[in-house]
Amino acid sequence: MTRADIFSEIQRKRSFLCVGLDTDPRRLPAPLAGSEEGVMAFNRAIIDATAPYAVCFKPNLAFYEERGAAGMADFEATCQYIRDRYPEILILADAKRGDIGNTSALYARAFFERELADGVTLSPYMGRDTVEPFLKYPGKWSVILALTSNPSADDFEMQRLADGRPLYQLVLETARNWGTEENTMFVIGATKAFILSEVRKIVPEHFLLVPGVGAQGGSLHDTAAFGMSPQCGLLVNSSRGILYADSSERFAEAAAAKAAEMQQEMDQLLKTYL
Amino acid sequence: MTRADIFSEIQRKRSFLCVGLDTDPRRLPAPLAGSEEGVMAFNRAIIDATAPYAVCFKPNLAFYEERGAAGMADFEATCQYIRDRYPEILILADAKRGDIGNTSALYARAFFERELADGVTLSPYMGRDTVEPFLKYPGKWSVILALTSNPSADDFEMQRLADGRPLYQLVLETARNWGTEENTMFVIGATKAFILSEVRKIVPEHFLLVPGVGAQGGSLHDTAAFGMSPQCGLLVNSSRGILYADSSERFAEAAAAKAAEMQQEMDQLLKTYL
Repeated sequence: MTRADIFSEIQRKRSFLCVGLDTDPRRLPAPLAGSEEGVMAFNRAIIDATAPYAVCFKPNLAFYEERGAAGMADFEATCQYIRDRYPEILILADAKRGDIGNTSALYARAFFERELADGVTLSPYMGRDTVEPFLKYPGKWSVILALTSNPSADDFEMQRLADGRPLYQLVLETARNWGTEENTMFVIGATKAFILSEVRKIVPEHFLLVPGVGAQGGSLHDTAAFGMSPQCGLLVNSSRGILYADSSERFAEAAAAKAAEMQQEMDQLLKTYL
Repeated sequence: MTRADIFSEIQRKRSFLCVGLDTDPRRLPAPLAGSEEGVMAFNRAIIDATAPYAVCFKPNLAFYEERGAAGMADFEATCQYIRDRYPEILILADAKRGDIGNTSALYARAFFERELADGVTLSPYMGRDTVEPFLKYPGKWSVILALTSNPSADDFEMQRLADGRPLYQLVLETARNWGTEENTMFVIGATKAFILSEVRKIVPEHFLLVPGVGAQGGSLHDTAAFGMSPQCGLLVNSSRGILYADSSERFAEAAAAKAAEMQQEMDQLLKTYL
């Protein structure tokens, strides 16, 4: 999927919403709890309910790997379900993988040659060797962690280097040259929205995947105000706020309502800032 | 498994060898190539052949995930096979996971509650939040990437911070306080063995997992000379050099011979430097 494809879907839906499919088997709504097919039934219902308002789905691998081979089968079936029914929606596998050369190439193969996802989140710690194998697949995306939304992002990501820049800025400046705006995105947590204006000085055109809006305290308005590029350039993720909007048999309607509410806010922000 | 358990196995076998089970289905020896059961048959033969000389097995998840749910079943069966037959041998899952809080807790659960591995490799980029959930399991190990053996380790790991230290040293100094020598190890690539003496100033007692000896150019002698602690404190990994020592039906004997050769060299190094 190209950058133009993503932007055209954003314009069509008037939304830059990414729905995080972080499906916790322990939090399934009452009608699905305890059934073996619960996770897939839940995911199908959430996908169908939110697809009109979302331009991206992002399953987090941890939630599937926890259940071993059975969970991985659910992850694959979830990707396949989206691909079959909503081929215009971007699928990002939130795997935060990071290994070297030959090994990284196997992860790339796992996600891209088997056509599970359009992009994968990657950890930059080991440098270019991690990302390069993923960049070889045309139309696929490397989504590189830069500044995350968790409290201990301060431990290393915000550490000042000898020239005064924080580490995450070096990651942006270095990694933007590994690929292009057509195959690389960056993860920038929204809990420090003013930082998005710093980020935009370094990567004015790249798509940014922004977690941390809502549950983690970030503001959607500030994210758009400081982070929107001429082609929007934002994918704002919401997981728990949508998935667990209601724990009764009305969970899918509640998820749709929550996604629709975010879409309406995003429509206004696109009018204001694009 | 405690640090004392690992050291006692090192003394018993006179070895600090870790065999990396990076089994590539495309490189199976002739008699196993193309069979669906090939990977497990290969792993069982390699494990049985090298167990007398090894104190640790380290399957790399990328090699299993590449084949999706079927590959993950092989990963689980491999861990189970080692646990059943060789309970005294440490199992480290080389997964290089790195996520935050609740999500990281799910990865910890995936590897530890299901009793697949004794330890997991982790990426420090997102800070303490990644590692903390893994430290809650008594007798389990967090194996944190510090300085890796790939060329692009220079991109970020070796970058100088404002106070002049390279980033990997800040990782060591920070992460050593998250846990203890009883639940934390660090990955230190052996391609720059003199660096091990710097590392030992910061973490004199911690176990170090050392890749990069052999295929990637590191010297076993230098690793021991600069890196050995009073309780050995080293696990030196070899993968391809052992797994693919021979591509005929004699692959397991060749793997045993290669592992035995490394064990003999390690025995000498333990006599010299312990």
